[in-house]
Amino acid sequence: MVSRSIRLAVIPGDGIGPEVVAEGLKVLGAVAPSSGLAFEQTSYDLGAARWHRTGETLPDTVLDELRGQDVILLGAVGDPSVPSGTLERGLLLRARFELDHYVNLRPVKLFPGVATPLAGVTPDDIDMIVVREGTEGPYTGVGGVLRRDSPNEVATQESVNTAYGVERVIRYAFEVAASRPRRKLTLVHKDNVLTFAGDLYQRTLKRVGAGYPQVAVDYLHVDAATMFFVSRPQRFDVIVTDNLFGDIITDLGAAIVGGIGLAASGNVNPDRAAPSMFEPVHGSAPDIAGQGKADPTATILSVAMLLDHVGAADAARRVERAVSDDLAERAGFGDRSTTQIGDAIAKRVSG
Amino acid sequence: MVSRSIRLAVIPGDGIGPEVVAEGLKVLGAVAPSSGLAFEQTSYDLGAARWHRTGETLPDTVLDELRGQDVILLGAVGDPSVPSGTLERGLLLRARFELDHYVNLRPVKLFPGVATPLAGVTPDDIDMIVVREGTEGPYTGVGGVLRRDSPNEVATQESVNTAYGVERVIRYAFEVAASRPRRKLTLVHKDNVLTFAGDLYQRTLKRVGAGYPQVAVDYLHVDAATMFFVSRPQRFDVIVTDNLFGDIITDLGAAIVGGIGLAASGNVNPDRAAPSMFEPVHGSAPDIAGQGKADPTATILSVAMLLDHVGAADAARRVERAVSDDLAERAGFGDRSTTQIGDAIAKRVSG
Ligand SMILES: CC(C)[C@H](C(=O)O)[C@@H](O)C(=O)O
Ligand SMILES: CC(C)[C@H](C(=O)O)[C@@H](O)C(=O)O
Repeated sequence: MVSRSIRLAVIPGDGIGPEVVAEGLKVLGAVAPSSGLAFEQTSYDLGAARWHRTGETLPDTVLDELRGQDVILLGAVGDPSVPSGTLERGLLLRARFELDHYVNLRPVKLFPGVATPLAGVTPDDIDMIVVREGTEGPYTGVGGVLRRDSPNEVATQESVNTAYGVERVIRYAFEVAASRPRRKLTLVHKDNVLTFAGDLYQRTLKRVGAGYPQVAVDYLHVDAATMFFVSRPQRFDVIVTDNLFGDIITDLGAAIVGGIGLAASGNVNPDRAAPSMFEPVHGSAPDIAGQGKADPTATILSVAMLLDHVGAADAARRVERAVSDDLAERAGFGDRSTTQIGDAIAKRVSG
Repeated sequence: MVSRSIRLAVIPGDGIGPEVVAEGLKVLGAVAPSSGLAFEQTSYDLGAARWHRTGETLPDTVLDELRGQDVILLGAVGDPSVPSGTLERGLLLRARFELDHYVNLRPVKLFPGVATPLAGVTPDDIDMIVVREGTEGPYTGVGGVLRRDSPNEVATQESVNTAYGVERVIRYAFEVAASRPRRKLTLVHKDNVLTFAGDLYQRTLKRVGAGYPQVAVDYLHVDAATMFFVSRPQRFDVIVTDNLFGDIITDLGAAIVGGIGLAASGNVNPDRAAPSMFEPVHGSAPDIAGQGKADPTATILSVAMLLDHVGAADAARRVERAVSDDLAERAGFGDRSTTQIGDAIAKRVSG
């Protein structure tokens, strides 16, 4: 079988990042050959260590190299020794913005066998996907400080929203909704307070939605949405929302499907004008780094999303199934190490 | 017994607002005499009906009258027939801003006998109080729209944060934390992305906190905080947070302690430069209005907060205890009407 070659950039990062990425790559290596894929990997040393050494977060030269790749797998970055925001803004968000990852895709799905903190909820009850805007809103970094450290200090943050940016993410969300059995799309915003941005989202939803009569549309304020996540998660199918609200509700989403150890995400450039980046939602968890305690499942599920993105849907389904079977058999995490979980899932996909 | 006279403004509002306010006033009427309080009530016709009739939300003349009152009880405002944001911004938020309600106080407490959606959680596990900033942040209404309805539209929303505004709410939160047995204060923000505003909060927390060595302080990103609300609510005692994050996490908080039917709040001007306003967190719920289905408990608990604010702590405790006893005996709401619940609680406080 002639295999298709895919250039894969790997950013292991800090803390547990390298450990979980190793397992993600193990599973990728196990599923690739029989799917006719060959991944040419390049690893990039980015994160806290590099920042300490060189003061760099994501240098232009590295960014240029990344642009030449087909797809990116990232572990996690961040360390308490680095001032808050430095790596987040300088590396993670810079990559999302520069590579125009306008769709931040985050499934929220309860797998059989996984303990949820919600009483009486079964896997049938939670199966949604959040389409989070990734390149504007309150994440632009626009804002500033006047009279710092004085009693008259003013600090501002600006949420910038464009018709261009809002339309493309809403259109994408309609496509996702139209492809799913329930065909339901919920806009989550706060249009009664953030009236300018909310109104742009609402008008765009209406306009784009006219082209998707088969998709049922509704709206929730973000505060109400968090209530429904815990009281009636069944009501959600596809959610489209702004960058900040998406950040918040997907962590809550992770919590209700068994925690951040299982939450995968894709920073997607649907136009393929630049490589997309897949990463677990969790952070670098320096407190448990190097102890084999990290759950690599979120990274492995991110690998499944990566496979979908490169057009290897069969391989993606195999990885998801392997994860699902593995989770169903786990007698609670703690019994197995990071490597053991990776091994078990890799074995299932190659088997 | 000579009774102290308190001028009470009542804004019943729309939907279920008048129904729940009636029960709140019933309980207030039952507890006041024996507490040496006499409430002189003035009712204000504000909300959707007035807006339809006159186009007014909160006219200056009414605002001036409100300033002359000691305290305000509000039911709920809002109706689908009114464009989203009109009453919220024109009435609710206008009152909070004009009356300088810089502390939005929201207890999150699980009462015995109340069903929570969280598995294995008992009343001992959830007892926190959120001190939400009420007069700045993303709620200022600053922002605008450029090239509306064109492909080049830009919509902005600005979060404005001042040393003045942040310091006073953080100081208040420290006072609350210092008065509680656990003496723990958690700042919730998103300082790794909203770096300017987050940094102002962090620096202020540190500076003000130096005066409260007895209070243990920590920090959580808002996304992580939502996870802990469902996975480990025990970790929270007092939370201080910005206006928007406070809005979101208190709805989530309401959900984990049995729903919005029980969530009380106070829009407080701690300096008493203007009357404070107490209201249930829930909205006007037009779908169930006029059917006796609304749970008045959130309003009654708001009345307890109001009593605390006017210095009637004993009466406040009596109302809280009556609610707590009533909840412990309820076989699930649905059995009793709005009025029946109000009657039952009023009977307990007068008994
Ligand atoms: C680390 C941080 C910048 C990031 C975000 O806020 O988007 C993270 O929370 C996430 O959700 O991917
Ligand atoms: C109605 C709305 C303006 C309000 C808010 O966002 O503050 C409400 O959600 C609340 O929490 O009191």
